[in-house]
Amino acid sequence: MPTVEELQHKVKELEAKLASIQGNAGPVRQKIDVMSSEVVDSNPYSRLMALKRMGIVDNYEKIRDLSVAVVGVGGVGSVTAEMLTRCGIGKLILFDYDKVELANMNRLFFQPHQAGLSKVDAAAATLQNINPDVQIDAYNYNITTVDNFQKFCDTISTGSLTSGPVDLVLSCVDNFEARMAINTACNELKQKWFESGVSENAVSGHIQFIVPGETACFACAPPLVVASKIDEKTLKREGVCAASLPTTMGIVAGFLVQNTLKHLLGFGNVTHYLGYSALTDFFPTMSLKPNPHCDDPYCRTRQTEARARPLVEVATEVLEDTKPLHDENEWGISLVDENSPVEETPTNLNLAEGIQVAYNIPVDNSTPESSTGGAVAASELSLEELMAQMKSM
Amino acid sequence: MPTVEELQHKVKELEAKLASIQGNAGPVRQKIDVMSSEVVDSNPYSRLMALKRMGIVDNYEKIRDLSVAVVGVGGVGSVTAEMLTRCGIGKLILFDYDKVELANMNRLFFQPHQAGLSKVDAAAATLQNINPDVQIDAYNYNITTVDNFQKFCDTISTGSLTSGPVDLVLSCVDNFEARMAINTACNELKQKWFESGVSENAVSGHIQFIVPGETACFACAPPLVVASKIDEKTLKREGVCAASLPTTMGIVAGFLVQNTLKHLLGFGNVTHYLGYSALTDFFPTMSLKPNPHCDDPYCRTRQTEARARPLVEVATEVLEDTKPLHDENEWGISLVDENSPVEETPTNLNLAEGIQVAYNIPVDNSTPESSTGGAVAASELSLEELMAQMKSM
Repeated sequence: MPTVEELQHKVKELEAKLASIQGNAGPVRQKIDVMSSEVVDSNPYSRLMALKRMGIVDNYEKIRDLSVAVVGVGGVGSVTAEMLTRCGIGKLILFDYDKVELANMNRLFFQPHQAGLSKVDAAAATLQNINPDVQIDAYNYNITTVDNFQKFCDTISTGSLTSGPVDLVLSCVDNFEARMAINTACNELKQKWFESGVSENAVSGHIQFIVPGETACFACAPPLVVASKIDEKTLKREGVCAASLPTTMGIVAGFLVQNTLKHLLGFGNVTHYLGYSALTDFFPTMSLKPNPHCDDPYCRTRQTEARARPLVEVATEVLEDTKPLHDENEWGISLVDENSPVEETPTNLNLAEGIQVAYNIPVDNSTPESSTGGAVAASELSLEELMAQMKSM
Repeated sequence: MPTVEELQHKVKELEAKLASIQGNAGPVRQKIDVMSSEVVDSNPYSRLMALKRMGIVDNYEKIRDLSVAVVGVGGVGSVTAEMLTRCGIGKLILFDYDKVELANMNRLFFQPHQAGLSKVDAAAATLQNINPDVQIDAYNYNITTVDNFQKFCDTISTGSLTSGPVDLVLSCVDNFEARMAINTACNELKQKWFESGVSENAVSGHIQFIVPGETACFACAPPLVVASKIDEKTLKREGVCAASLPTTMGIVAGFLVQNTLKHLLGFGNVTHYLGYSALTDFFPTMSLKPNPHCDDPYCRTRQTEARARPLVEVATEVLEDTKPLHDENEWGISLVDENSPVEETPTNLNLAEGIQVAYNIPVDNSTPESSTGGAVAASELSLEELMAQMKSM
């Protein structure tokens, strides 16, 4: 039987170990009231506030007043949340309903000791430890059920630091159903958001900025290929094991948060659609006008509202360089290339069981063209690339 | 005075907490002998091995035989090391001589509880916890001193898992002196390496693949602007506080490791020079031929050796698409644009005290042009952009 002294020594030793690691010992650094530019080793914000002196951002401190919702805390969402946390975002709202698994360890952020914990709880604990100044709310539910969808809508419309709508929603989900739920909510709530995605073969990805009524929503140009007959989740879990890489997911998260910062803090040009093809380091950009015949009635309403607004307002938004070259190209998206007839494309698709082409790609004579976006070297996505991307959503 | 029972309970509680966190309780997952493709939640490699089924990589397991040295474990290097660790690289060799500070918390990877620890030790502990299968060696010294430079050369020439040279060196350092040291070592040792960098204003960065004798080395096209009279470190610490963002650094690390994987595992096309300009989402690519008059004698020797080799060997390397359009463009780099005479450029430079233009930019009549790289949309860097980038090294 150990003595009281021995046990007291053991307790002290364990407490010291715990303190030296993290977590339950409480945040290591104290909250900081005001972001300072002071150049000292102990200031976690000096390198961010330096963006002002460098002439990049006028008012970096504004970030503390802003709130962002991150839906999906997986390979892209967790890194997205970490970047925003380290940038000192005012409030972060996390949604996910999955658990951390060892199978997630090929992506950044989660660590093996977190296996079995809910992703949002594990993420919130780590993020709060990294930056105690950020207010973090975590919601552990599936936003696509009827009840939860309403809770989701309520949360993003009252989730700001002043109980108004959040400043931005970032979609980091990995399936069609969840993207459609976010799209529906954001169209109804007039909520700006970014969609993001990584392909099943892990070597391409994209981000897309969606301003309801002003740019194509997710339902305006839906994926060409969707799961049919079987539940997407079943497909994902038991059938196809998608490949993933920490590189591609980290890069997509980087693009997502970089464009989020540009939009929220007003510097640089926000890119509407930025793709990434890892095999060739190819970065297509596009601008997507909303589809006047979009299935989502709220999208059509937002389009009517946008048309009623003076053009100047649109021009001061990020849209200034994004008008399609031809008015008759209503989607502003180039799916059809005369050199690669759509008839040939299906032979390139290697569809797994339970996957089908969602609809025939319309061929019309209006010669769709993608528009070019200012200083951005705009490029057309090949149909194959687009289908591969969309197939993987 | 607490009772023995109370203390025993307390000890158990603390031990459970420790176990639930990480670290000193030992790695949470056991080592895994063979990489498996099995699709189960407990397999940390299933999503990487899926790259084979997806037709991206022929032999992913090969990564376990490979060793990579990461020099500089800061904003780019730490994320680089984490990505390689999660990808299951065989061996990782880390070099740095700095300590973690709270001022680093605006970048990914390190956490506040690690403040004060050496970067290599803190990184090695975290990385080993993430993936116990990776062999991690950590060297806490400055590679630019005479003694340490020799130790550095010895380590990279005997650092592989079979005591041969490492498979790749990744430069993630933040100053000219350290880059030159790596360049000198790699030219002497015929060691392929990647250089990387992020600008002082945090909104641009680049990676560059250097194959001694075949592509421009760091001394072939040195920075146009360097620190003079004052020690770079003094400048960095007390004078200018460079801005940094977790986004830009994460993206550059992603590009670096993605191209590392492409090179080491033989898929896709390795990009020679990939730039990133965050403000416009612009991604210039270039190919840089070595300078026959390079100051580094080992570089000139490697060039002679490369010319003596049959061309086929070069063509099977990543260089196939990278020959400059005109032979007389010996550098393969476009610094001079007829529309923007170099005479005007110095007025655009806002040089801080202690910084000077290193030399006059040579204007010759050979009309330098950048070459285009295969499917990559090659773009010419403007002189301003190039100078801004190089200024920040």
